[in-house]
Amino acid sequence: MSATIHPLPRRGAPSLQPLMALVAEGMNSVNAVILDRMQSRIPLIPTLAGHLIAGGGKRMRPMLTLAGAALVGYGGSRHYQLAAAVEFIHTATLLHDDVVDGSDMRRGKQTANIVYGNPATVLVGDFLFSRSFELMVEDGSIKVLRILSNAAAVITEGEVDQLVAQRQIETSEERYLSIINGKTAALFAAACRVAAVVAERPEAEELALDSYGRNLGIAFQLADDAIDYDSDTAEMGKDAGDDFREGKMTLPVILAYARGNEAERSFWKEAIAGDRNSDADLAHAITLIRKHDAVHATRERARHYAQRAIDAIAAFPGGDAKAAMIEAAEFAVARRF
Amino acid sequence: MSATIHPLPRRGAPSLQPLMALVAEGMNSVNAVILDRMQSRIPLIPTLAGHLIAGGGKRMRPMLTLAGAALVGYGGSRHYQLAAAVEFIHTATLLHDDVVDGSDMRRGKQTANIVYGNPATVLVGDFLFSRSFELMVEDGSIKVLRILSNAAAVITEGEVDQLVAQRQIETSEERYLSIINGKTAALFAAACRVAAVVAERPEAEELALDSYGRNLGIAFQLADDAIDYDSDTAEMGKDAGDDFREGKMTLPVILAYARGNEAERSFWKEAIAGDRNSDADLAHAITLIRKHDAVHATRERARHYAQRAIDAIAAFPGGDAKAAMIEAAEFAVARRF
Repeated sequence: MSATIHPLPRRGAPSLQPLMALVAEGMNSVNAVILDRMQSRIPLIPTLAGHLIAGGGKRMRPMLTLAGAALVGYGGSRHYQLAAAVEFIHTATLLHDDVVDGSDMRRGKQTANIVYGNPATVLVGDFLFSRSFELMVEDGSIKVLRILSNAAAVITEGEVDQLVAQRQIETSEERYLSIINGKTAALFAAACRVAAVVAERPEAEELALDSYGRNLGIAFQLADDAIDYDSDTAEMGKDAGDDFREGKMTLPVILAYARGNEAERSFWKEAIAGDRNSDADLAHAITLIRKHDAVHATRERARHYAQRAIDAIAAFPGGDAKAAMIEAAEFAVARRF
Repeated sequence: MSATIHPLPRRGAPSLQPLMALVAEGMNSVNAVILDRMQSRIPLIPTLAGHLIAGGGKRMRPMLTLAGAALVGYGGSRHYQLAAAVEFIHTATLLHDDVVDGSDMRRGKQTANIVYGNPATVLVGDFLFSRSFELMVEDGSIKVLRILSNAAAVITEGEVDQLVAQRQIETSEERYLSIINGKTAALFAAACRVAAVVAERPEAEELALDSYGRNLGIAFQLADDAIDYDSDTAEMGKDAGDDFREGKMTLPVILAYARGNEAERSFWKEAIAGDRNSDADLAHAITLIRKHDAVHATRERARHYAQRAIDAIAAFPGGDAKAAMIEAAEFAVARRF
């Protein structure tokens, strides 16, 4: 979709490789901060935090901070610590999410709450959250602090909103977008925006990076939610059917319910209420979602937001950073895991 | 114990009344900030937060910020918002504590985790924590942010440390002091210290207020831990015997175990391991604690820290603020609930 923008011809499926190559050296610095600052005199803290942090996440958010810095030509080093702070916020929310959802698997490993218990997982999440603020405070910019503390508050609001919407069949697409704007897109936006702030770029560039991150975050979340019901997907980033069993109102369900006939709507009501959660029920849900093309429709929505992300940075000069960020947005939609 | 310091003769038991009278007007402003900033477009957030916030806590920490401000003669209004931020941090940790401990009663009411469930309680705790940082960031002082963000990190470390020490009979008095320094005293210290910071007082005054708050916090926590085993206590701030059943190594147990004979030590090992948690076991524990005078000894330790708190502010000029802060320290030790 970006053939007219992308500076070099490309073969094959879009990938994260260009983004990863762009930020590889910087990510060594970020990872050094992460490893250093998750330490504590209490050994359980780095052990539990490391279980998730070393557990093979993509580290999308810190990569975006670094990519944003490259896009605006930032030559300093403040972004390493801020990227680590962003990753700590994200890690804290994952730890708490897994407690809240009672999840047992993440990234193909047992979750921290299963290995170390809910109490320790809640408290180490709190520790990482506090530590992320210490990192930001050390940076010393009130403007950066304002952006990231606001993002943190919006994330937690989004998480509560998602919890309230759980098992509520009448959740609308608008409400769902508001939830994922909170729980996912706000931190993507802040991660990108702070790059322009440390580089002291004009506000228009700040807002452009914010918009890139926000739309990219929505695209990633929509694609994630599509993948949970995509029967063609072999490998998954999370357990297949988790959203279904937890009664989460994600877009594939919202669309299948909206497009369904009376019998189908009855099924969805029972399923989202928690009265149908067998493997056969999941298979039936996937059949209904396929019948109404709801995975494809969700991906099309994701494509819309990915395109908005790409257009948000259209005014920046071309180069490796811009190309990598464009391809990352294409990857968000095209990926199957 | 402060007859030579206290400016006015006083009859009867020490009370919090002078402190409450000193800050009553200011606390109206603090409470207005608290009520305003716990709001959210998600109604569950103020409902759940309000369950605890309106639940009759003493609001010691914000009162201390205001008392500290009065002591140093601060004439501005920044401390109202910071006191609210401190109370939000405290409220967030209480919500998470109750989830971690599986508590069902606090301040004579069912806990939020019982009424609203663990998931919502974890997430609303996160929200209040984020919101507290937004309040601090709005104040705009990096120095204040450094003090409070560091306190938040120390608290969370202390909470993890306490969890690790739970059911560990060999916990020493030193280790216990380190835990309560983290989980209680750090925020008391920070709450007092920020008053000197907003008033732009010399560092010696900052440190004096920090020391007052830290020692007062230790005294309060020691007295709390004594009360949980004080058989003479009719009314209690928390459920009697909670610490015992949760296998928490508090000072009364540490002292009774250290001073006990072989048979008594066997009992304590089994009890703290969780193998003796009947009402009869609790009664036996209280008998052993009384035999070794461990509640009294714990109160004597508390008295030591209360005296250190009083001496920490000795160099400030006398007046209502100083008198109220002295009496608050005496109250911390003398109270029976």
